[in-house]
Amino acid sequence: MTPTDFGALEAFAAECRSRVETRLDALLPPATISPARLHEAMRYAVLGSGKRVRPLLVYATGHALGVTMDTLDIPACAVELIHAYSLVHDDLPAMDDDDLRRGRPTCHKAFDEGTAILVGDALQSLAFQALAGDGNGHDTLPHPTRLEMVGRLASAAGSRGMAGGQAIDLDAVGKALNLAELENMHIHKTGALIRTAVVLGALAATDGVDAALRNRLDHYAKCIGLAFQIRDDILDVEHTTAALGKHQGADVQRNKPTYPAIVGISEAKRIAQELHEDALESLSGLDDRANHLRELSAFIVQRGH
Amino acid sequence: MTPTDFGALEAFAAECRSRVETRLDALLPPATISPARLHEAMRYAVLGSGKRVRPLLVYATGHALGVTMDTLDIPACAVELIHAYSLVHDDLPAMDDDDLRRGRPTCHKAFDEGTAILVGDALQSLAFQALAGDGNGHDTLPHPTRLEMVGRLASAAGSRGMAGGQAIDLDAVGKALNLAELENMHIHKTGALIRTAVVLGALAATDGVDAALRNRLDHYAKCIGLAFQIRDDILDVEHTTAALGKHQGADVQRNKPTYPAIVGISEAKRIAQELHEDALESLSGLDDRANHLRELSAFIVQRGH
Repeated sequence: MTPTDFGALEAFAAECRSRVETRLDALLPPATISPARLHEAMRYAVLGSGKRVRPLLVYATGHALGVTMDTLDIPACAVELIHAYSLVHDDLPAMDDDDLRRGRPTCHKAFDEGTAILVGDALQSLAFQALAGDGNGHDTLPHPTRLEMVGRLASAAGSRGMAGGQAIDLDAVGKALNLAELENMHIHKTGALIRTAVVLGALAATDGVDAALRNRLDHYAKCIGLAFQIRDDILDVEHTTAALGKHQGADVQRNKPTYPAIVGISEAKRIAQELHEDALESLSGLDDRANHLRELSAFIVQRGH
Repeated sequence: MTPTDFGALEAFAAECRSRVETRLDALLPPATISPARLHEAMRYAVLGSGKRVRPLLVYATGHALGVTMDTLDIPACAVELIHAYSLVHDDLPAMDDDDLRRGRPTCHKAFDEGTAILVGDALQSLAFQALAGDGNGHDTLPHPTRLEMVGRLASAAGSRGMAGGQAIDLDAVGKALNLAELENMHIHKTGALIRTAVVLGALAATDGVDAALRNRLDHYAKCIGLAFQIRDDILDVEHTTAALGKHQGADVQRNKPTYPAIVGISEAKRIAQELHEDALESLSGLDDRANHLRELSAFIVQRGH
């Protein structure tokens, strides 16, 4: 594959990260108000780090459909809050038992286990509180759209989406999964929320998005979600702890099933590339405003961290 | 205080329990579908036991305002799902470390810690999914009402409500709280969700509920919420493990602050009675349809389990 110049994507992604950081900072209660330690831990878990891939997908999808950035802030924050909560809970000793995340101690290491459980719980609530609106004037989305966003996000987060994927993952440790079983896990664990980021971006476009276009965008999201996970697995094998911000080889050490373990590194890379091409194909009817989505797909299969 | 005949309340409560059980059973994914163990554990945590006080409050408030029972099913289930999730997480080793709940092993004992964390997470998602509607025809509530319910429930569940109260509680173990600090903990930990049950019942009444009536109902809910907690503390001291379905004296053993510990048993009972009378007073403008709310308040301060 040819290395791509991601200049335009990087500028857009920087704008999105800046927007979502500002809005998340405003949504999260200040660490000065009670219960201060919980609020401090929530802010620790959410702010100042993270690739913000899911918010970027919300913004890039909305942008492709002519939605203003303002309109996309709240759905972008809501998806990221659900993602941030899931990382805090996944890192707990009873789950993946990780002590390093995004280059810093995980939430239960920096604070304590009880606080980390509550951080995740409260971040999930905050995601839905944000979508429901708080009378702060950010009511650019109609009520039925917001309500559908709540339903889609809740469904993606729940037992038949992300939380279910983590359950499948816990159950799979030490077992020999085949490719179909591994994909099923990822479709739930990371795929559901990535798809929902694209769905929310598309829902924000109140005009001109028909069922066929929704389906094509959903297919795009399915492809890049899986590609993202395959790339994660490859990076876990190939890269250093410093570059990843988490322990290199952690998946292998825990005897977790990964794409490279099942099909080998080069076949894993081939599958990721195929998914990228499939993702591009599903955007073929869209104009240049969809270029961020196209570049994002390329970036996912080429990224080094 | 005079023992009350709770016959009418008991018949109404039995109807509510039956309704909410049926609806919860339908909302929870079957234990036969994947991830089966997670779904089995979610059903274990929610179905077949529990006093269903919060659903009863949703139904009784709606009933007082002329709302049909059908309209109240979903908000009743949503509040109970949030309550059920909070019990599963509160019982975890890193939190209250309880092994008995409602006369049965707690979720992490019957299953495992990782599953119990995911059960709580997925139940919270399910609460909001239910309120958002699932296209199953239960759309008797207008979209703006449903969205306001999502916002109220999310706010009550979050860091400035129930989850925040649990954080205050964790922080208070082994500390000497005064009465104001103890009340502040309960106002968050249990009070926020009890108030929200009444708020959702009132929101379901689309006609004729003005701000003054909402405030009076909210005051009623504040009073019975606190009375409920005081009664819980008293029962923890006075009753046997068998009657409570959890270990008697568990709060005292953990050196948790309680009303009896701070003000003594008889003063705790006097405060509960005063709150009950205050609750009745705030319902004074309502007709006989509010009798279930009145009897519920009396029951709360007299209940033996």
